[in-house]
Amino acid sequence: MPRLTRRALLGSCSLAVAAQALQQATRADAAVPISGQQAAGFYRFKLGSFELTPVYDGFWDRPIDARFVRNVPYAEVKKALADAFMAPDTLAMPFTPLLVNTGGKLVLLDTGSGGQLAPTAGTLVANLAAAGVEAQAVDTVVISNFHPDHIDGLRTKDGALVFPNAEILVSRVEWTYWMDDANLNTAPALYKPYFLNVRRVFRDVKSVRPFEPGAEIVPGITAIAAPGHTPGHCAFAIASGHRSLMALCDTTNHPWLFARHPDWQPILDMDGALAVATRKRLLDRVAADKLPVTGYHFPFPGYGHIIKTGTGYEFVPAMWQTAL
Amino acid sequence: MPRLTRRALLGSCSLAVAAQALQQATRADAAVPISGQQAAGFYRFKLGSFELTPVYDGFWDRPIDARFVRNVPYAEVKKALADAFMAPDTLAMPFTPLLVNTGGKLVLLDTGSGGQLAPTAGTLVANLAAAGVEAQAVDTVVISNFHPDHIDGLRTKDGALVFPNAEILVSRVEWTYWMDDANLNTAPALYKPYFLNVRRVFRDVKSVRPFEPGAEIVPGITAIAAPGHTPGHCAFAIASGHRSLMALCDTTNHPWLFARHPDWQPILDMDGALAVATRKRLLDRVAADKLPVTGYHFPFPGYGHIIKTGTGYEFVPAMWQTAL
Repeated sequence: MPRLTRRALLGSCSLAVAAQALQQATRADAAVPISGQQAAGFYRFKLGSFELTPVYDGFWDRPIDARFVRNVPYAEVKKALADAFMAPDTLAMPFTPLLVNTGGKLVLLDTGSGGQLAPTAGTLVANLAAAGVEAQAVDTVVISNFHPDHIDGLRTKDGALVFPNAEILVSRVEWTYWMDDANLNTAPALYKPYFLNVRRVFRDVKSVRPFEPGAEIVPGITAIAAPGHTPGHCAFAIASGHRSLMALCDTTNHPWLFARHPDWQPILDMDGALAVATRKRLLDRVAADKLPVTGYHFPFPGYGHIIKTGTGYEFVPAMWQTAL
Repeated sequence: MPRLTRRALLGSCSLAVAAQALQQATRADAAVPISGQQAAGFYRFKLGSFELTPVYDGFWDRPIDARFVRNVPYAEVKKALADAFMAPDTLAMPFTPLLVNTGGKLVLLDTGSGGQLAPTAGTLVANLAAAGVEAQAVDTVVISNFHPDHIDGLRTKDGALVFPNAEILVSRVEWTYWMDDANLNTAPALYKPYFLNVRRVFRDVKSVRPFEPGAEIVPGITAIAAPGHTPGHCAFAIASGHRSLMALCDTTNHPWLFARHPDWQPILDMDGALAVATRKRLLDRVAADKLPVTGYHFPFPGYGHIIKTGTGYEFVPAMWQTAL
């Protein structure tokens, strides 16, 4: 039965009518139980003849502290989080790989966490299935950078390959950097686990093919050098017909922090100053050209536009639409 | 086979590598055809022990012209549309009813278009089903105002009642206004069809129950007088446990126009000046109290917060999350 005791709410609106409440209480409980089930995490849109689908892997509530942004006082970071109605002392960081069906190729850009980073992430394969795509059907996996949230999804927790039929395209710069034992041996302690993780994920993988920035790596998809987040980090231009889009990948982490404050250097970016320069260069370009963008750590589905403001940039999410 | 001809894209990124393209062309076409299917249009979140689900009915590409906003030059409206990356000369206006499962009652706030307003709308019942809810299970329908996009969904195109087991709660002010023949007879030509539509939709409906603004109409849901859009338009305060939310309904149409420019008077609002006063009163309240809100014509899922800016208000959408 519904409880009759109701707390006052919203000042002048708190005048519950007792007779009404009693009448309500005589009726049956809701016929449908509380569901607890979220909608499937994918969103489709067209780009020329291509069909693009951001597919949600989940999010990581990353604990943060004064070290999170290297070059501004932590109070400024906390204010930006509060202004965006985000929790203090954590950053809810979504992971959203992008599926691109060119008609000729089924391409997945980045692979999520593989359920190995946070209990609130690891839903990529389930959401792909909800979108009608089995992992076995993916022809090509493209990796933007070798941080764990982009490559761990190549394998299950048990080590099996998730996309067994896919060629895996990686930046040659990125591959060379992370596979170099001298870099591993001289890396700061923070990054050593990343080097070891790269070796774990790519061990015995035969289908890796390196690409050069600037190359059209799949017909319609061109790699754009975007160093700073990692040495070989790439964004991608996707073009079909008369339309094009830039997949920003990790050029900008959460836009409510780092598009609004492009000069901020989060410790996520391995070379903070270079990442800032890359961020401004690419965001200036998509803003000037009014190019649609996707962002791997943008709020799902992470598809929209970038505008330049007086102090930085703002992400303008595209309106959700049924019609494709 | 993939086409080998690719247009140049994005300036410096246009250097397609011919050998690579040839290699791609020798591989099989994508194993998965272009889908053309959007994800189901619902989004779940918790408010105390209540489960709330905005359910998408679709959108109406409403043609607009210089008459659309009464009190500003049309050029300003077009600029606001362009700044938001929206089309000129139409307003893509979503319809998003809100399902509230209180545990005791399954309540639907507004009913969408019933497929009778635009070919891009009419998906409410299908999206409810995708969310696991049959229309027959709805206990209570609450109507915020009697414009067609809120009431037409009470019936199918053929006139059958869509929610046969629901009590239909309506503002007494709204009911009295629209059912008054003197008001019909003296109404401007623009509004006469609305009067006739109200009579069509509510004919022979036995389960209508009028409420007074200020009343708790369902345990946890309290009506808030919000006149101006229509004479009896209501917003609703929804409260469970220590949490509350305001369903703004049509207090503000598309936020990228009318939250940013609260003084604008769209012809959608029957009493423009009163609607402005109501809009500012409620938006000031939710901004000051940091109350989450939903908006019927906000971009789906239309759930987030309102902040006050130097010139108006800004809607801050909540981040999509899997975890409930």
